[in-house]
Amino acid sequence: MSKKEAVKILLDEREMPRQWYNIQADMPNLPKPPLNPATKQPAGPEDLSAIFPMELIKQEVTTDRWVDIPEEVADIYRTWRPAPLYRAVRLEKELDTPAKIYYKYEGVSPSGSHKLNTSIPQAYYNKQAGIKRLATETGAGQWGTALSQACAFFGLECTVYMVKISFSQKPYRRSFMEVFGANVIASPSQYTESGRSILAKDPESLGSLGIAISEAVEDAAQRDDTNYALGSVLNHVVLHQTVIGLEARQQLAKVDEYPDIVIGCCGGGSNFAGLGFPFIKDNLTENKKVRVIAIEPSACPTLTKGTFAYDFGDTAQLTPITMMYTLGHDFVPPGIHAGGLRYHGASSLVSQLYQDKLIEAQAFGQNEVFASAIRFARSEGIVPAPESSHAIHGAVVEALRCKEAGEAKTILFGLSGHGHFDLTAYDAYLGNKLEDADYAEESVKQSLACLPKI
Amino acid sequence: MSKKEAVKILLDEREMPRQWYNIQADMPNLPKPPLNPATKQPAGPEDLSAIFPMELIKQEVTTDRWVDIPEEVADIYRTWRPAPLYRAVRLEKELDTPAKIYYKYEGVSPSGSHKLNTSIPQAYYNKQAGIKRLATETGAGQWGTALSQACAFFGLECTVYMVKISFSQKPYRRSFMEVFGANVIASPSQYTESGRSILAKDPESLGSLGIAISEAVEDAAQRDDTNYALGSVLNHVVLHQTVIGLEARQQLAKVDEYPDIVIGCCGGGSNFAGLGFPFIKDNLTENKKVRVIAIEPSACPTLTKGTFAYDFGDTAQLTPITMMYTLGHDFVPPGIHAGGLRYHGASSLVSQLYQDKLIEAQAFGQNEVFASAIRFARSEGIVPAPESSHAIHGAVVEALRCKEAGEAKTILFGLSGHGHFDLTAYDAYLGNKLEDADYAEESVKQSLACLPKI
Repeated sequence: MSKKEAVKILLDEREMPRQWYNIQADMPNLPKPPLNPATKQPAGPEDLSAIFPMELIKQEVTTDRWVDIPEEVADIYRTWRPAPLYRAVRLEKELDTPAKIYYKYEGVSPSGSHKLNTSIPQAYYNKQAGIKRLATETGAGQWGTALSQACAFFGLECTVYMVKISFSQKPYRRSFMEVFGANVIASPSQYTESGRSILAKDPESLGSLGIAISEAVEDAAQRDDTNYALGSVLNHVVLHQTVIGLEARQQLAKVDEYPDIVIGCCGGGSNFAGLGFPFIKDNLTENKKVRVIAIEPSACPTLTKGTFAYDFGDTAQLTPITMMYTLGHDFVPPGIHAGGLRYHGASSLVSQLYQDKLIEAQAFGQNEVFASAIRFARSEGIVPAPESSHAIHGAVVEALRCKEAGEAKTILFGLSGHGHFDLTAYDAYLGNKLEDADYAEESVKQSLACLPKI
Repeated sequence: MSKKEAVKILLDEREMPRQWYNIQADMPNLPKPPLNPATKQPAGPEDLSAIFPMELIKQEVTTDRWVDIPEEVADIYRTWRPAPLYRAVRLEKELDTPAKIYYKYEGVSPSGSHKLNTSIPQAYYNKQAGIKRLATETGAGQWGTALSQACAFFGLECTVYMVKISFSQKPYRRSFMEVFGANVIASPSQYTESGRSILAKDPESLGSLGIAISEAVEDAAQRDDTNYALGSVLNHVVLHQTVIGLEARQQLAKVDEYPDIVIGCCGGGSNFAGLGFPFIKDNLTENKKVRVIAIEPSACPTLTKGTFAYDFGDTAQLTPITMMYTLGHDFVPPGIHAGGLRYHGASSLVSQLYQDKLIEAQAFGQNEVFASAIRFARSEGIVPAPESSHAIHGAVVEALRCKEAGEAKTILFGLSGHGHFDLTAYDAYLGNKLEDADYAEESVKQSLACLPKI
């Protein structure tokens, strides 16, 4: 590694973005409006005000291009932002590729992932609105951790409905949230109607993200002092995550670079959108030609195998009906280790852009993804989260294509978090015990048959 | 939190120290020389060359004030260094203290602790010397992780003898090392004479750091292609860690600060020395009056309750006999969660300075330490390692003294690592299941009776 190659590209605190970027100002087609789950009529602010503060509802629908980051939020962002951008020089060498590979690393946040970018403003706006307590769900645990920390910063109570199988399998994640004072409940639980009705049918239910969302939404809807917080999918969440791409673009400019390809892993879509949308803006408004690629697991291939349709966000059909790519709200994906990518739907905004062919999508199996994760760890020194490893693998595939074609393209990928709480997955991979669970075509067919009739 | 308060103080890469600081140039009394364990005569380079490369042996004894950091080492340091210095404004508020509290955070390193500061140069000098493989021991796992990563960077094989109780209790730590390609062996093992002799006496032995050191030293001594690497105690290890204090001093200067009190946790002593020695230099050469305080667990109170004497570093008596504060090489401390502070001895340099009253030492029980760790986590957002939490508690105690006295002192403490692999400990604390295991006075008496006769 030569001294002259910039391996770590930092921004000064004063260069941190002061506004989030809202792609609703620039995309050619806005998504169709969300519908009230009961009336199936377009949902207004009043449909959301039982569980969200008005500022977030406004951010959900605004078409302003830029939204100011409140000073109180920026103050906390500054404890880890601007996040570093790295040139993966050792990985390039390992791959023997002419491509230049950069990655934006969000694992430096105290919660270990990009999720804190949105949990902080969500806690802030709720605090401002006089809310005392937030309820949420968590699957793999990264979102629950991020919201627990944000609530601790702003003095809010926090209740996390944690998918029961994760609650049992990931006791460290649970403890991490408890360190920050959160109340962590295994879902399905006896505390909500949604939970009780699932348990009545199946007392041994291991839970799912869809069920946990139903529990948290019900909890929030029933208590005046409590709101709900979601870690992905919604427009305001995606908005908050754009700090990632805005910073990355500035950092690349510092070394006179601009990417040919931008790659992010995609579950609900907020990480992918956060990195990618500022570059899609350049495509839309400055005639750039960046390929922006969403990588998803082949076990839960929402974009690559799903349908573009109105669907519910949760199992108990409590959330608004949203236009999105979906595998059906009843779809239960195989138990792959990238828990954060096991969601049946995708963000409306991401879905609309995919429908309009403004982004690409690719799906990979978990064994090839872990192989790239190990290769990355041994070269770059960071153990990546299984979710983020999908982006790594996407970048490796593109870098190897460059090698074949002899093209020195510039690739930027998002490393959304570290894998410190995912070492059972690595253990399974290193012990040749990982299965490449494919999505079950039959089960998707069944669950798509249950889409709401609009 | 006001915008005007610098919460995170960063250095530019170009401000990273280019030399390590060697306190042997400035301390009034050098430690007595180490002795060959067999002949009990002063150990020369030839006594160490079977297990260390000559460059590290030279660093062990040099009295040069500054030692150049090789460019290849600096290149890797730059992936996470300079490490951030934080002003703990939210903790100050929580404690309602007039004191200003700063902490230097080493948990941003890819291995999650300060240990990478020395594993990188150790792997580098061994690679330069033509060595193919390193053997080491690990207790809590931070050192084994750091050496595994360093070996992956330089293409060396790595074998880690991991104390058997940790091997079973901390499977994630083991997986983390395996991700980097290390061969991790539960100690005592059948692979060495030292291991076999322990197992012959006690087939159920859970191991200890002293036993694991014996196994790793024996492994290295027997193979020409293999050297040994130690993560603390030795002079060259302490030397490498001084980047911590050198950076912290520069960072404080950026905000026109200089500490009244510097606090580090102390096991073998390398973290404490790394932060503290550059400030002790100021006391010795510039007439400063900084109080430099080592914090140790009351379960293993090497400095506060030990004896200043010649002793072995390991159980099988294979290491040189060194002048140090010790509880006796046979002492087995209670099973507290700060595994990295469970060592019977302390660095010769730290011990000599303590003997000469140039540093202070305090011991605390693990429940009070965890209480401060939780308080810190909820204020500052970082879950600290149990070892580092000793320094946090020391700082909290001093800050509360300032509150009582109405003094606005400036306190700097070292946050040597994060606690992502220590959540069982937090779980136990939050469930009121932690015991304040005191050291057993009788057992120390017995083990001190077995000191080598010089």
